[in-house]
Amino acid sequence: MDAADIRALVFDVFGTVVDWRSGVAREAAPFLARFGRGDVSPGAFADAWRRRYSPAMEEVRSGRRPFTRLDVLHRENLDAILAEFGIGQAGIPAEVLDELNLCWHRLDPWPDVVAGLERLKTRFIVATLSNANVRLMIDLSRRAGLPWDAILGAEVVGAYKPMPAAYLRTVDMLGLRPAEVCLVAAHVSDLAAARACGLRTCFVPRPQEHGPARTAADHRPARDCDMVVSDFDELARRLGT
Amino acid sequence: MDAADIRALVFDVFGTVVDWRSGVAREAAPFLARFGRGDVSPGAFADAWRRRYSPAMEEVRSGRRPFTRLDVLHRENLDAILAEFGIGQAGIPAEVLDELNLCWHRLDPWPDVVAGLERLKTRFIVATLSNANVRLMIDLSRRAGLPWDAILGAEVVGAYKPMPAAYLRTVDMLGLRPAEVCLVAAHVSDLAAARACGLRTCFVPRPQEHGPARTAADHRPARDCDMVVSDFDELARRLGT
Repeated sequence: MDAADIRALVFDVFGTVVDWRSGVAREAAPFLARFGRGDVSPGAFADAWRRRYSPAMEEVRSGRRPFTRLDVLHRENLDAILAEFGIGQAGIPAEVLDELNLCWHRLDPWPDVVAGLERLKTRFIVATLSNANVRLMIDLSRRAGLPWDAILGAEVVGAYKPMPAAYLRTVDMLGLRPAEVCLVAAHVSDLAAARACGLRTCFVPRPQEHGPARTAADHRPARDCDMVVSDFDELARRLGT
Repeated sequence: MDAADIRALVFDVFGTVVDWRSGVAREAAPFLARFGRGDVSPGAFADAWRRRYSPAMEEVRSGRRPFTRLDVLHRENLDAILAEFGIGQAGIPAEVLDELNLCWHRLDPWPDVVAGLERLKTRFIVATLSNANVRLMIDLSRRAGLPWDAILGAEVVGAYKPMPAAYLRTVDMLGLRPAEVCLVAAHVSDLAAARACGLRTCFVPRPQEHGPARTAADHRPARDCDMVVSDFDELARRLGT
């Protein structure tokens, strides 16, 4: 991949930019303790919440449900995992659950992210291409100091990844051709969908995404990608910034 | 208006944040000289281009035309004003016109804007609510160093101001109630439309917007606004940032 051909870098966020599992677990821990389930592993709670992420979006992708922002899906999924863990909602104020749902707005970036984005921004348009809704991304980015040029992605274009429309409408809104845009992501399936739409792709493995019990599926070498880097620092260096 | 009730400030851009007339005139001057019309005033050329802005959007607002981004409308309007000034396109390469059209991506902010936005951002979400398309706003903001949390507005929500959908869908995407969002604008009509949707409003007169031959219409005191400030510095101060 020649950096001279690229005008914009678009980023997957959950897993690629931020460590969702630690962030969710951090807020789940006091919640579980307060409501008498200190025996439940906060990491397992985060994993269970995340497992319902793609199935919930699939209802939208399939057309069975109109576009619904991720905050709403997360909140519905929270109700579902409380039931899954046998946690009755009778004694839990709704505000507490609404507040816990916002833990997804308060995730920390991986350590290389802020400095890497700052360098990349000097030469390229940097934007999100996430399934997160706009307000979630605003809150997360303000808290972490992520210097996006624009928050794009599912809610802006009305389509969840990996539907082609999510990539193609984003590229169109950037006023670019697909080959001028590179998706940076830690997930092979996301990259494959972007590549099928003509985008350039960069794989950045995040082996800590799933914690100690990580699954290996998305950490195999992504041989079809235009670039594989170990972190955003290497990405910035290899793109000449 | 109590600052404690406000969560986000959304900004009109052309005229309020940037000086479109000087910026367009700056690039029109060498164009006019190169193609033998150095006698045409660059400011008058800018005014003529801008005069076609609202009528072109009205085709979309009325439903006679599907949503079409501003870059496209600007380019069509450029063809129209060349004819208006009797400038034949026969000897002008298309790339030159396409490049001139991008002068709208290279407008300078008023002197108080960058410092004011930086201060306001420490406490409020700051976002565009402009009729400009996303790429135009990205280019303009990167060049000027405007620290938006998000680029929202017409293209993102698929509706041009002053249609209610432009304001209400933006507020919805921010996950807020209208009364938690304040529109900052130099134009009374924009503020009136926002107020009718329940937003808070702040009028900032920009008496230089239309150059020396300015029209007075939008510079009368906006008595219906929640706040009137002389510039973004005063806005930041009065909102406690």
